[in-house]
Amino acid sequence: MPTFQTVRGMRDLLPEEAERLNRVIAKARETAELYGYREVITPVVEPYELLSAKSGEEIRQRMFTFKDLGDRTVALRPEFTASIARLATTALKNEPKPLRTLSVGSVYRYDEPQRGRYREFWQSDFEVIGSSKPEADAEIILLTNTLMKAVGLRSYAFKVGHIGVLRGILSQENVDDKTQNAILQRMDKKEYNEAFTLIASEKCRTLLQGLLELKSGNVFETAEKIKEHVEGYSEAMASAENLLDILTLVTKSGCEIATVEPWFARGLEYYTGMIFEVYIPELDIALGGGGRYDRLIEAFGGEATPATGVAHGLDRIALAMQTQNTAQKIKQCKRVAVIPVKEERKGEALKITQMLRAAEIPVEFEVMGRKMAKALEDADKRQVDYVVIVGEKELQQNAVVLRNLAKREQTVVAISELAEKIRS
Amino acid sequence: MPTFQTVRGMRDLLPEEAERLNRVIAKARETAELYGYREVITPVVEPYELLSAKSGEEIRQRMFTFKDLGDRTVALRPEFTASIARLATTALKNEPKPLRTLSVGSVYRYDEPQRGRYREFWQSDFEVIGSSKPEADAEIILLTNTLMKAVGLRSYAFKVGHIGVLRGILSQENVDDKTQNAILQRMDKKEYNEAFTLIASEKCRTLLQGLLELKSGNVFETAEKIKEHVEGYSEAMASAENLLDILTLVTKSGCEIATVEPWFARGLEYYTGMIFEVYIPELDIALGGGGRYDRLIEAFGGEATPATGVAHGLDRIALAMQTQNTAQKIKQCKRVAVIPVKEERKGEALKITQMLRAAEIPVEFEVMGRKMAKALEDADKRQVDYVVIVGEKELQQNAVVLRNLAKREQTVVAISELAEKIRS
Repeated sequence: MPTFQTVRGMRDLLPEEAERLNRVIAKARETAELYGYREVITPVVEPYELLSAKSGEEIRQRMFTFKDLGDRTVALRPEFTASIARLATTALKNEPKPLRTLSVGSVYRYDEPQRGRYREFWQSDFEVIGSSKPEADAEIILLTNTLMKAVGLRSYAFKVGHIGVLRGILSQENVDDKTQNAILQRMDKKEYNEAFTLIASEKCRTLLQGLLELKSGNVFETAEKIKEHVEGYSEAMASAENLLDILTLVTKSGCEIATVEPWFARGLEYYTGMIFEVYIPELDIALGGGGRYDRLIEAFGGEATPATGVAHGLDRIALAMQTQNTAQKIKQCKRVAVIPVKEERKGEALKITQMLRAAEIPVEFEVMGRKMAKALEDADKRQVDYVVIVGEKELQQNAVVLRNLAKREQTVVAISELAEKIRS
Repeated sequence: MPTFQTVRGMRDLLPEEAERLNRVIAKARETAELYGYREVITPVVEPYELLSAKSGEEIRQRMFTFKDLGDRTVALRPEFTASIARLATTALKNEPKPLRTLSVGSVYRYDEPQRGRYREFWQSDFEVIGSSKPEADAEIILLTNTLMKAVGLRSYAFKVGHIGVLRGILSQENVDDKTQNAILQRMDKKEYNEAFTLIASEKCRTLLQGLLELKSGNVFETAEKIKEHVEGYSEAMASAENLLDILTLVTKSGCEIATVEPWFARGLEYYTGMIFEVYIPELDIALGGGGRYDRLIEAFGGEATPATGVAHGLDRIALAMQTQNTAQKIKQCKRVAVIPVKEERKGEALKITQMLRAAEIPVEFEVMGRKMAKALEDADKRQVDYVVIVGEKELQQNAVVLRNLAKREQTVVAISELAEKIRS
């Protein structure tokens, strides 16, 4: 029989990679604690209807959708926000606002596999539900900044935009929601010409095209330019002012925003306000991104509830850490192996092993039944620090041989003093 | 629009439940470290062929199976062992033996939902690959014992059996593998009569039925009785002796085995040797179970490689902790809220918040833009310990008001001393 492989687009994380990912997850949880977010765990399998309702065509087509044995149409979550919005309209409906949640786990999209992009990937997702204020938007940028710093990334850059500016113009020019979605999808893919051909009104097209020219080196200047550009468009104007408020709050709190892109759109359909992404120069994929979605919870049958949030690509962040060589050395605890001299002493050897573990000393017990020389050679190869040799003669005196492999020294140690000796 | 619900059999874990599960996961990881197991992360979505090859009819029929967009037949993993066996024949093929792996994550089975049994559940899975020795089997029981103790469970009990005894008898009586699997499946479900009708030979049937009578109060006595019972059946006899060896090692290392059940079978088809489960009296579902599977890796196209392992039901363990009321109080760190007196001071307030977070103090920032009285009332309701009030007058002196909500006291504190003051 030939060996099995992973499904295309899926992958295994071997011990070092798994450790790296787990370290990023731990940092995401520390960040959540610092900012007052509490973790919830939602299912990987959700109703197709829930996941597809407001995600947008692009993601809808790339979902892993199927029927379960009860003939329900379900899908693997492509992101967390829909599940959290579901919670906000059901189990957490009556929680005091703001509701701050963290989700950590794997999500699924049928994308073309490439470096840093797999069909199963990991996210930490932070949502603030119940606040329409720029403080809430600022908070999700700031906590992303905290996470980037905590994992040791350098020269990462925030890119910010505002969907309210784009939709504000389109709505006032009577472009219907469906067409708006199609236009924003194309703008997200940087297919601007294709996007603009969907706009009937010449005036509207010109206004939107004008946004492409507005970027300047200074983010506040860019935001001011947007304001001038959309004069007469009340919703777009309010959005530009909102963007300015958020920029001010974030910058004042010590987090720099690299660019404001007036034409910036993101793949998800549910955004209504500020949106952002964070990058490092070495990778052309975003390490995280999010934004405001003020109408999603209402669309899911809840009360009208403003909300904003961010998802971080945890395996991408791990990749970024590797690329920037930031990964701190893993704390090396002493490695200990216990080997019985003879088969008949394995019972005593295992008992001593359990005693060491009870004293919180990690031990690898010899389970291969190898002869001493072979077992020692293997311990050496695996860079074990200490070997506890359990032999007849020493056991009679309630003792064992403790061998320091690096120093090639060994001493007889009383079993009662073994844990202490290894620890010192 | 009506609200969305979870898919039948799936569920959300709200903050307290999520915290409980995460605590069990942390204990599983500590156990892995103590025993020298390294974590690997394998995909939730695996080839259907891999997952169905040796899992057995029962599990095969309860898998979430579907075609992905590339027309591959895939399934959600119902357990971890198949994925680890895949790794052992591919990416980890050349690793020195024994190979010790930990996996932690969600698995999926379309079972009838009931208390402690969901269609998405969490496991920590420990595998030792490359050892045929009873030491390895003893190790997986001992580490399970360590985990049970670490989470604070009481009066849990291990039930042990040996598939080699059952298959040894059946093989020597020329019962083919397929029929053997069918018989063991039924025995696992305690449908003994249905199992025995599948056995043509009268002698063989009597021998197997005889096993049902062999249990005694003492596990060593039971194992000895099995030996007597299977005399003349060489493979079954060797299995009974292997069981005795494992019992001796485990017991000597301070872990008691409650019962040996000679007729004990488990749902998975790949077991070949010792099998076990662990229970608490209050729940009739196993909290963990595993056993030896010496032919799985070979069946997956690898070299003949003995192996043994265990999976722990993490959410069931969390339920058991709750049932036994063992859940230790979560460490209560001080909760701090920062509130600006006026809208115009929110920038300064957010800056102070970031300073506190940089000093590793968790802070909930006022993102609702509420008036002071309302915000304070809410902080009180959410049992916040300290409120930092950022007001005009104090700011002019680089200070803020620090209010102790429980004591209903407040003092003016210099911003430079705020972190220290809150921490003390």
